Amino acid sequence: MSGATTRGTLTRRGLLVGLGAAGGAGAMYAAMGALGLAPDRQSTDYAPPRASDFALRGRAGAKVVILGAGVAGLACAYELGRAGYDCTVLEARDHVGGRNRTLRHGDRLPEIAGETQEAKFGEGIYFNAGPGRIAQWMITLDYCRDLGVPIEVFVNENPSAYVYTSGMAAPIRARTARADTYGYLSELLAKATNEGALDRRLTGQDKELLLDFLSAFGDIGDRYAYAGSERRGESTGGPPSLSEVLGYRIGRTVSFGLAYDQAMPMFQPVGGMDAIVTRLVDAVGKDRIRTSAPAEKITNRPDGVEVAYKGGSVRADYCIAALPPNVLARVPGNLDRRTVDALSTPKPASAGKIGLEYRSRWWESDDHIYGGVTETDLDISHIWYPSHGFHGRSGLVVGYYNTGSDADAYARLKHAERQRRALDQGMKIHGAKYRSALASSVSIAWQRQPYIEGAWMAWPSYEGAFSLLQKPDGRVYFAGDWLTHLVAWQAGAFESARNVVTQLHERVLKES
Amino acid sequence: MSGATTRGTLTRRGLLVGLGAAGGAGAMYAAMGALGLAPDRQSTDYAPPRASDFALRGRAGAKVVILGAGVAGLACAYELGRAGYDCTVLEARDHVGGRNRTLRHGDRLPEIAGETQEAKFGEGIYFNAGPGRIAQWMITLDYCRDLGVPIEVFVNENPSAYVYTSGMAAPIRARTARADTYGYLSELLAKATNEGALDRRLTGQDKELLLDFLSAFGDIGDRYAYAGSERRGESTGGPPSLSEVLGYRIGRTVSFGLAYDQAMPMFQPVGGMDAIVTRLVDAVGKDRIRTSAPAEKITNRPDGVEVAYKGGSVRADYCIAALPPNVLARVPGNLDRRTVDALSTPKPASAGKIGLEYRSRWWESDDHIYGGVTETDLDISHIWYPSHGFHGRSGLVVGYYNTGSDADAYARLKHAERQRRALDQGMKIHGAKYRSALASSVSIAWQRQPYIEGAWMAWPSYEGAFSLLQKPDGRVYFAGDWLTHLVAWQAGAFESARNVVTQLHERVLKES
Repeated sequence: MSGATTRGTLTRRGLLVGLGAAGGAGAMYAAMGALGLAPDRQSTDYAPPRASDFALRGRAGAKVVILGAGVAGLACAYELGRAGYDCTVLEARDHVGGRNRTLRHGDRLPEIAGETQEAKFGEGIYFNAGPGRIAQWMITLDYCRDLGVPIEVFVNENPSAYVYTSGMAAPIRARTARADTYGYLSELLAKATNEGALDRRLTGQDKELLLDFLSAFGDIGDRYAYAGSERRGESTGGPPSLSEVLGYRIGRTVSFGLAYDQAMPMFQPVGGMDAIVTRLVDAVGKDRIRTSAPAEKITNRPDGVEVAYKGGSVRADYCIAALPPNVLARVPGNLDRRTVDALSTPKPASAGKIGLEYRSRWWESDDHIYGGVTETDLDISHIWYPSHGFHGRSGLVVGYYNTGSDADAYARLKHAERQRRALDQGMKIHGAKYRSALASSVSIAWQRQPYIEGAWMAWPSYEGAFSLLQKPDGRVYFAGDWLTHLVAWQAGAFESARNVVTQLHERVLKES
Repeated sequence: MSGATTRGTLTRRGLLVGLGAAGGAGAMYAAMGALGLAPDRQSTDYAPPRASDFALRGRAGAKVVILGAGVAGLACAYELGRAGYDCTVLEARDHVGGRNRTLRHGDRLPEIAGETQEAKFGEGIYFNAGPGRIAQWMITLDYCRDLGVPIEVFVNENPSAYVYTSGMAAPIRARTARADTYGYLSELLAKATNEGALDRRLTGQDKELLLDFLSAFGDIGDRYAYAGSERRGESTGGPPSLSEVLGYRIGRTVSFGLAYDQAMPMFQPVGGMDAIVTRLVDAVGKDRIRTSAPAEKITNRPDGVEVAYKGGSVRADYCIAALPPNVLARVPGNLDRRTVDALSTPKPASAGKIGLEYRSRWWESDDHIYGGVTETDLDISHIWYPSHGFHGRSGLVVGYYNTGSDADAYARLKHAERQRRALDQGMKIHGAKYRSALASSVSIAWQRQPYIEGAWMAWPSYEGAFSLLQKPDGRVYFAGDWLTHLVAWQAGAFESARNVVTQLHERVLKES
């Protein structure tokens, strides 16, 4: 669930999804500074609640009802449970994890007003339909360590993969496009420097150092002319012309891996992203979680909160609503009008993925591509190759991971049509084997997932509603990645859980 | 055994080690073109000898004695053995694998005219003292697939790791240095473009596309001024000045991962590089390999070849000498004078590594560094963090991987002194824990390894001696990475083995 690009522009989603749409990276960065958000360390000052905090107060933790067994909800139950809180988690769907969803053989995938698919994957094949990667600075990895979830490298960028944009006659290896781009860029800047065009900006020492740098960076010769490089990985012919290379329009593609949240190496749990969910559930206790229990009414009272759900009701001291704001806004009850308005402020974004299971790992044997992503400006956006099971018999490729209008277009189709369309597009890069070696497939349209209804939330701004919902409405708290600057990342869900848990615990300690 | 840099210059070893020293990447690339070497596909036209090739000829494969049980020698025995050849492998040392060496608890490491170390690592800890990484286009991976050697990603570059050069007051994260460098580079070129300094070279369309590219690549704003970026991963303060950033002199560091042979993702066998050796030995048959059997005399005869070794002698139809040329040149016998001269032409290079076992994985928990390399211009050159065992209890860091005079300087020291010096240097990056958390260490100086006497070979040119040794001297063939353009890579050893096996098989088929 991370790093979507949109057709035509290949826009990096960036650290701040909400602002990304409005202002680009510059605006994001400014906003982060304004908000005092430190991108270099996520919540390192978190002090988890401990049972011993109650020692001098003569009472234990309160009773808390948590709505939603996604990562945010489970993380709240995990953190509070360790401190002795009595937590109950209500989950609307018949399975836990929310958008952290790994599909395996036999799993059923219903869609709102659509058909229900059933995964028919071979043994050992899985499809991370939601989040797929974790950056090494994210607290998600700290939870993997705590919970004993084994991790492995996720290959998020691969120069052996292809780039395919409308500016190209045929797909080319990313390494070739990159080498040519850096080569010409270095040539242009070196020549301008050498001819004195930058004398106003550079000292003599600067110029010397810059020329040294460019020689290495562009692999250009002493006369600063780019004439190809071993980095291209192609022995036939020289590089295309400067105009042709610029016409590739691969700035966003080349820059993708420079982002703080997307830079290699990234990581994934061994065996599927839902290992995080499984271990959280083990730690929380299965008996504390009720599935198929959608909340039907939330009532704040002076001395507690009451949640009616399908099949029963719960009374608790506090409630944490860890479900999508657009879904929560529709649940009846007595939340403040301003709260409900705020919940309706961020808008759900569309995103879709298709998992294509292949009978052979032709991308490894034929193309020497071991993991990574082919970037396109087709409506499939990306093709992901698997970062695990190398040299195995079969494997699963993500045939599209698209957003916005592309995701909406695929969502409108039945699965068979989505598959056909994805194969047609992928064949432009990989040829006939892309269809002929297919074993099975499953597709997801997150905006059509029951009780989820969106891939992530987009905020018009990080003021007003965003700030309001950081605080509880009465005894009801709100949690989710959408309440942080790491929208669409599990790290955001964990961060939000920590924020809520900290607030709630401070209140309980004060009141006890 | 790959990717050494030398102090002060941080020179990428590059694809062609031999030429690398003489002419840099440009010369390498030109040489590759001149030699018809296709960097994009390694020996894809190899047709392995098959037993069925003899079907119409009424005889089986010949008897072959192979000198050296390194990767080249074992690969020859593997390829020939599958076709029914009767191979005997003589290895001078008491263990197989040559430079493919993985050290574990209890392994002893003698040095020529030096002390013998014994590894005292904890359970599960290993140290790849020789090769450590495999590029995805290298045939080494094809052998891993064939032999059933499981592989995992090797992290060869990590923006969360540090860069430390004499131009810096303190180590900085690679991501920060890179973001600032690309930012200023983009600013300079964008402004020059915008001011018309490149009008002779760029059309109006080119300029527009270039400015679009630079905006994304440098994360610079609409006025093309670099003012920091989320990519820096640092929330405090803005970027240093352009002059300061240029003063880092990190061109080679930033460019390292662009090389065809060093670009991420790279790979390693699970559990240690010697898994390749172990599986080769299993396939060849242990009974065909004699260890502690250094060759003492090689005699070409009209009808065969005789090899006397310590403890016996072998007669065979052919011999493949797969040992280092500097060592082979000293073995008595009747090889042609020109052959012996040619064997003495390439010069052995020095390289050393130290494996530092730590009681905790502080680089993950404290620094959020999961694998990768810190680049320095200190005499340790690099610090490698492990790409496996993430979140484990302990782990092994490579505290130096240096070459040339730095490697010679460390080689002259006893192990305790090497360790002290390496820790002193590493503490400049990581502080006191770099010493206090140490559990044990082992160091290797390849130029002082018995019967190896060098890390790899450096050729003065790829003509003359290099060409001569591609062909046999009588019935004696030569094999090793040093006979290819992939010097110091196992892929070179495999490629050379394939070349020799092909030649030998053609000759046998012709003569039978």
